[in-house]
Amino acid sequence: MNASPKKAICLLSGGLDSSTCLALARRDGFACYALSFDYGQRHKFELEAAARIAAHCGVARHLVLQTGLDAFGGSALTADIAVPKARSAGEMAHGIPITYVPARNTIFLSFALAWAEVLESSDIFIGVNALDYSGYPDCRPEFIEAYERMANLATKAGVEGRTRMRIHTPLLSLSKAQIVQLAQELHVPFGLTHSCYDPGADGRPCGQCDACLLRQKGFEEAGIEDR
Amino acid sequence: MNASPKKAICLLSGGLDSSTCLALARRDGFACYALSFDYGQRHKFELEAAARIAAHCGVARHLVLQTGLDAFGGSALTADIAVPKARSAGEMAHGIPITYVPARNTIFLSFALAWAEVLESSDIFIGVNALDYSGYPDCRPEFIEAYERMANLATKAGVEGRTRMRIHTPLLSLSKAQIVQLAQELHVPFGLTHSCYDPGADGRPCGQCDACLLRQKGFEEAGIEDR
Repeated sequence: MNASPKKAICLLSGGLDSSTCLALARRDGFACYALSFDYGQRHKFELEAAARIAAHCGVARHLVLQTGLDAFGGSALTADIAVPKARSAGEMAHGIPITYVPARNTIFLSFALAWAEVLESSDIFIGVNALDYSGYPDCRPEFIEAYERMANLATKAGVEGRTRMRIHTPLLSLSKAQIVQLAQELHVPFGLTHSCYDPGADGRPCGQCDACLLRQKGFEEAGIEDR
Repeated sequence: MNASPKKAICLLSGGLDSSTCLALARRDGFACYALSFDYGQRHKFELEAAARIAAHCGVARHLVLQTGLDAFGGSALTADIAVPKARSAGEMAHGIPITYVPARNTIFLSFALAWAEVLESSDIFIGVNALDYSGYPDCRPEFIEAYERMANLATKAGVEGRTRMRIHTPLLSLSKAQIVQLAQELHVPFGLTHSCYDPGADGRPCGQCDACLLRQKGFEEAGIEDR
């Protein structure tokens, strides 16, 4: 008799990175519990992509939590602030963009931690990437390390010394082109994912926001077609 | 001209501890932004207490966020699990009680961090207490220290080195009796606060859960009447 597979919580926005991260967790033999958030984002369309990817990957469960970060505002993704368009790579490389949502990854990881604890899972996957888009403080390796350390003190398992919570960030040091290549190897259906910060009412990507431009650049550099 | 007061985010459940913590932040000159959570707790009545206390303390703003932790379950406070009653002090001192809500303080602090970042505040107050009720992993000083360290890597201010986020835990090492005494000095209106995990439909405390028993013990030892 085979042992039941280990459970992993996989944060899933419906974008290319989180979808690739989920596919990796699945390839590595985890039973995946996908977690998405309706947080008041202007690109709520991504939740449809998340549902499609979760179904495609055959996750054990997909939860979408309501967490109204628009109550705080302070970001172009959750408040009435324009999403920057047509920025150059140089512009993207400097400073923290206005699309940064304060403490978003900290909050998302904390819900993942709660679910992991209830499911007695010790593995959380998050598709953060520090290379192509270093502007977000909560995508940096030093943040992830500090989070993991905190998580192991926050939980029952940590106190009882039963298990060690691990935050997996397999995409952390990959370029967007490398992520595209990896996604192809893992048969991630590109067409089901959604990256745009400012899509039309029908979900069509704007083609000009940072997320669209980085995605285009990644596919171009990988020499792979985005479809 | 006086400078504007510094802003603080104060986590407020409506219980005696968080109310005392808020009163302390106010005494120390902070403009207080109170944050409460409708997280699917069985003692939702505490939110009425939180609103009363926030109004009494004249907070700058009181936000109640919906964060359905009952989606995960795993606790007597958020799932269909009985709240333990009439436990002795010895029973309470051992192990992690079933009223522990996985990752609750981690999640609450993360929302406070988001709000702090948007308000450009560097001060978060939480009324955790490690002495009388050491069973909760996320009430221990080592957890708070690790959280603070992580918070300073998670945020814009942390990256830019502008400011240092501080998690204030003024009640951490106080006994319940000491908290009652402090609350009296600060003129916290005891009657407006609510501690019970399992109140009646009218909000009346059960008198037998751990929270009720600890509250009674605190008032008895302080020689102060709870009214």
